[in-house]
Amino acid sequence: MKNLRFGAVGLGRLGLQHAENLATRISGASLKAICALEDNLLDECQKKWNVETYKNFEDMVKKASLDAVLISSPSHLHCEQIEKALEAGLHVFCEKPLGTTIEECQKAEVALARYPDKIFMLGFMRRFDPSYREIKQRIDAGEIGRPILLRCYGQDGIHAIDGYLKFAAHSGGQFLDMAIHDIDLARWLIGSEPQQVWAIGDAYAYSEVKQYNDGDNCSAMMKCEDGTMIFIFVGRTAPHGYNVETEIIGTKGTLRVASVPQKNFIEILDSQGVRKECSQDFLERFEQAYVNEVEEFVRCIQEKRQPDIHIKDGTKTTAIAYACKESFETGKLVNIQL
Amino acid sequence: MKNLRFGAVGLGRLGLQHAENLATRISGASLKAICALEDNLLDECQKKWNVETYKNFEDMVKKASLDAVLISSPSHLHCEQIEKALEAGLHVFCEKPLGTTIEECQKAEVALARYPDKIFMLGFMRRFDPSYREIKQRIDAGEIGRPILLRCYGQDGIHAIDGYLKFAAHSGGQFLDMAIHDIDLARWLIGSEPQQVWAIGDAYAYSEVKQYNDGDNCSAMMKCEDGTMIFIFVGRTAPHGYNVETEIIGTKGTLRVASVPQKNFIEILDSQGVRKECSQDFLERFEQAYVNEVEEFVRCIQEKRQPDIHIKDGTKTTAIAYACKESFETGKLVNIQL
Amino acid sequence: MKNLRFGAVGLGRLGLQHAENLATRISGASLKAICALEDNLLDECQKKWNVETYKNFEDMVKKASLDAVLISSPSHLHCEQIEKALEAGLHVFCEKPLGTTIEECQKAEVALARYPDKIFMLGFMRRFDPSYREIKQRIDAGEIGRPILLRCYGQDGIHAIDGYLKFAAHSGGQFLDMAIHDIDLARWLIGSEPQQVWAIGDAYAYSEVKQYNDGDNCSAMMKCEDGTMIFIFVGRTAPHGYNVETEIIGTKGTLRVASVPQKNFIEILDSQGVRKECSQDFLERFEQAYVNEVEEFVRCIQEKRQPDIHIKDGTKTTAIAYACKESFETGKLVNIQL
Amino acid sequence: MKNLRFGAVGLGRLGLQHAENLATRISGASLKAICALEDNLLDECQKKWNVETYKNFEDMVKKASLDAVLISSPSHLHCEQIEKALEAGLHVFCEKPLGTTIEECQKAEVALARYPDKIFMLGFMRRFDPSYREIKQRIDAGEIGRPILLRCYGQDGIHAIDGYLKFAAHSGGQFLDMAIHDIDLARWLIGSEPQQVWAIGDAYAYSEVKQYNDGDNCSAMMKCEDGTMIFIFVGRTAPHGYNVETEIIGTKGTLRVASVPQKNFIEILDSQGVRKECSQDFLERFEQAYVNEVEEFVRCIQEKRQPDIHIKDGTKTTAIAYACKESFETGKLVNIQL
Repeated sequence: MKNLRFGAVGLGRLGLQHAENLATRISGASLKAICALEDNLLDECQKKWNVETYKNFEDMVKKASLDAVLISSPSHLHCEQIEKALEAGLHVFCEKPLGTTIEECQKAEVALARYPDKIFMLGFMRRFDPSYREIKQRIDAGEIGRPILLRCYGQDGIHAIDGYLKFAAHSGGQFLDMAIHDIDLARWLIGSEPQQVWAIGDAYAYSEVKQYNDGDNCSAMMKCEDGTMIFIFVGRTAPHGYNVETEIIGTKGTLRVASVPQKNFIEILDSQGVRKECSQDFLERFEQAYVNEVEEFVRCIQEKRQPDIHIKDGTKTTAIAYACKESFETGKLVNIQL
Repeated sequence: MKNLRFGAVGLGRLGLQHAENLATRISGASLKAICALEDNLLDECQKKWNVETYKNFEDMVKKASLDAVLISSPSHLHCEQIEKALEAGLHVFCEKPLGTTIEECQKAEVALARYPDKIFMLGFMRRFDPSYREIKQRIDAGEIGRPILLRCYGQDGIHAIDGYLKFAAHSGGQFLDMAIHDIDLARWLIGSEPQQVWAIGDAYAYSEVKQYNDGDNCSAMMKCEDGTMIFIFVGRTAPHGYNVETEIIGTKGTLRVASVPQKNFIEILDSQGVRKECSQDFLERFEQAYVNEVEEFVRCIQEKRQPDIHIKDGTKTTAIAYACKESFETGKLVNIQL
Repeated sequence: MKNLRFGAVGLGRLGLQHAENLATRISGASLKAICALEDNLLDECQKKWNVETYKNFEDMVKKASLDAVLISSPSHLHCEQIEKALEAGLHVFCEKPLGTTIEECQKAEVALARYPDKIFMLGFMRRFDPSYREIKQRIDAGEIGRPILLRCYGQDGIHAIDGYLKFAAHSGGQFLDMAIHDIDLARWLIGSEPQQVWAIGDAYAYSEVKQYNDGDNCSAMMKCEDGTMIFIFVGRTAPHGYNVETEIIGTKGTLRVASVPQKNFIEILDSQGVRKECSQDFLERFEQAYVNEVEEFVRCIQEKRQPDIHIKDGTKTTAIAYACKESFETGKLVNIQL
Repeated sequence: MKNLRFGAVGLGRLGLQHAENLATRISGASLKAICALEDNLLDECQKKWNVETYKNFEDMVKKASLDAVLISSPSHLHCEQIEKALEAGLHVFCEKPLGTTIEECQKAEVALARYPDKIFMLGFMRRFDPSYREIKQRIDAGEIGRPILLRCYGQDGIHAIDGYLKFAAHSGGQFLDMAIHDIDLARWLIGSEPQQVWAIGDAYAYSEVKQYNDGDNCSAMMKCEDGTMIFIFVGRTAPHGYNVETEIIGTKGTLRVASVPQKNFIEILDSQGVRKECSQDFLERFEQAYVNEVEEFVRCIQEKRQPDIHIKDGTKTTAIAYACKESFETGKLVNIQL
């Protein structure tokens, strides 16, 4: 079968990884074109992978003879680029979040509806991590009985704080930028929609974030329509590294993913005690998941079927994140409207 | 130094353990008298430890020539018995909770104020577990920086459910009966009072508890006066055993106690994978803490000083538990009045 | 850069995996031809990957216009096939062990010496597992001080025993078939040659293996030239799965790899306690390492440099394994001649 | 029941702990007299526990009106003191090892045979640790099938090295001083006698010990009469603390005790990764076992029955330790004569 020709937009850390995966690791795909603003990065990629380079997204989707596009640009550009790619006849893989406002998301939904034969997928990569995939199967098989509580931690290592602070004003805040992954997990694993939320938090270490009505560490507790409880904690100051931890407690059993965020199978016994070093960022922790998700997207195109992550999932997670944000800002219990 | 003569009231599982500890393990103490309603248990104790037996509490505190009394009777009798023991000139160790209503607790406070030379201590045994003692020291030493989030799990093993269901009508519910320990931990470890709470939950497995306006698994999220966040989960249906787990996340580090509730140092590798068996109940998990707390009480009497757990801690934890209960029952955010 | 064209020989479980990796995952390589005896497997591969198929190895290396060959055939064919591939002008990647007798190995060494521009690599994949790679770096950086003891476990899951028993007569026994990996690790990590060995063991569960002068579980203790101690345990009856565990104790620290052979990041809390499920076989545990090693081989060819694993490593590990076998069979201490 | 009156000899670290346990923690026992050479320690004990003090052992056993004696004196005095205590009509609890030569041990056996009504027990405390007790039960219940390999680690923390070096000349070496516990465990858990041993090792960090024909880290591999394999590693230089770790691999399962020598239930997540601090010495790790063993001795006296640890166990472990030492010194395989 002929390799699908991809264009990729955005060369931030994750964008660069996606591009490298497309160029060297994704079975069934090849990287044909790249679009970004940074000349040096474009040059580098051009040399390394012999790809066409563009500085204008519309140019790329129109001229590069592509089958599909992978979008890792800044979040507020996602919905517009989705629409342009669809218009150019391309399949679309888009990084999370779908958009930064619900209106944008809904507009993208409408656009997509006009192209029913195009494959669209959102990059909720955790669903493609082998451990998450397995707990989903176990939950669906009834192994833990009825779900009671889902606990999700999403913590960035403190070493990333300077990078974040530069970007904080445009991040959308803890819930839109970080918790969005946990909100997606919750909806996927529980299979019921969050109905009500109370969110709290503060700027415990970096008062700078207060100017954006944000905290550096925040929590949200939610109640789902079916009564399942959710607790989400998202923080920016973990000294031990990147800590994405998920636990689901059911009436018959409990499943935990990465309750220790160990980066590999090494255990060190030294004057510090017995210790495991931790993953330091999302690229290290979810390296394989980022490959798996795009390979699934490729298979969907090849087999002409839509993936399990729909565009509506993007809109709903954004709506829930906004409800968390509203509760955090007002201090009140918020009813979630989906 | 002469051993302190103790009387003990109540021969439930914990009462029996306290009696045995006093009779055989507590340094500086001896068990002189026991009070309970069950003739067979009284006979048994009398034979085993050669103690006087009483069926009436007032008789025991007046006639048995005691120095101190240890109260493990049903919760609604605590405050009244505290008062009677003080009147009889005895030092008092009382199991948690202090009382089942705030009014009872306040009445006990008033009574105790009349006997400033009497030593009074409440049985929040977790504070005397070596692991909890150490995290308290580490937090106070600033090792984790500023506390951000305290997460507490208190789960009973499912095997104890039948026993609980018989007792559920009089237990006070998840927050007064179970979360009270976590509320005490929170106040002790954080050093700031909870200010606002939202509590949710349901009868996920045992609908019987609904008739008491209770759930079998409940959560509460609280915000403290100083901004620290608390998440408490209390459940009755843990298939793996007795799971008391505590985590405190700070700006400089995180401490976890018993993130795996392993009962000892054994690891089993068999067809189930690699596994650790868990503690099955509070007596197994906190065996040593139950000894340590009473030994501290004995030392306080010997050294004429009050322990770190004051009667006001009993009243306040009860008030907070009631606020949780109110939020659970009304579905609303509740402001906590202390 | 043009993809290197590979031929692959052998379609056992590992051979099939190598073929799939070459066809779909190895950056810089493509699978052009396959050689095996099984018609159905050849057909399957031909359909899946559109490759040429051969039943005769010499035919493949002469006619298929290859750059390199990957050998996963039965061990006793390795050395002969290495020589034929070299004569046909191909680079060679060969699965462990190099050969089943020292004479074969030495003959292959002589052959290789005639083709100094050909790249040759042996498949000791553990060296390409991220955890092993990291402990090697830590040891070389002096983090554990002077090595004292290396402990290696190599256990197959009991579920694989029937497959093994069929193959046992030709396996070469525990030391040549299993311990060979641990012997390679030992030489690589310690950097000193084993000098003396005592090996023991028995047929604890499967008396069938006694007829081959073998055991189902065996141990060997060795002393290296520099005084470092080695303990190797290799077994066929692990109920929990595939347990490859390595520990190196030094004067300044200890490193352990996979002291729990967990297959992913999931922890299950259920009526069995707290448990992690284990990897079930080498393909699951070393999936990535099997890719990494061949990618390193490809880079070596592209960059015209020999890999760190030399053909002499193959001969020496075989000689050490034979010394273990001799000690096991005679019950005596054996001096190792390299 | 009247408390048994104990005399204690020896006020080293362990002797002091035994004395304190007898004075304050052992149910059914009281400490009546202490014998040691150090005036200051005797004074201290006298003040703390109101006990009689002696500088001569024979004086104490004759004059102090004791029921039993607990011997924690230097090892070469054990057998002589056992005999004197028996002659004085006392029950005897003696710390390991029974004696420093096999001749001494046999003489003590003969002496004990003359006093069949006296209770004698050796201080192999590990048998009274809850985790070891449980694996013994599991093995005896057949849970792991037929034992294949017992692996024992006994490591002292490096912080104790200076104390050891002063004492090294009289310690008897790694096998008599440290491995003796593991040898006892092996005989107890496997139920078959070691038959043949090869022992190796070196002075990896402290060349001082070479003058005593000893190493600072040593290993011994043994084969038992029934074919079970034993691997023992004993070291003096563990940077992480006191590491006593035991694993028994059977045909149906594997049991591990303290594969991580964590001192309590705390897990720390900080810039070092995820870590557990370790026990620092035998008193911390086996605190409860030291109480349990003496309480069992007390019960044996009360119930007029001999404990499971016989004097012959002392002689045999000493003989096996000597065989290890001989192999270490000669470099040869040694057949063990019991």
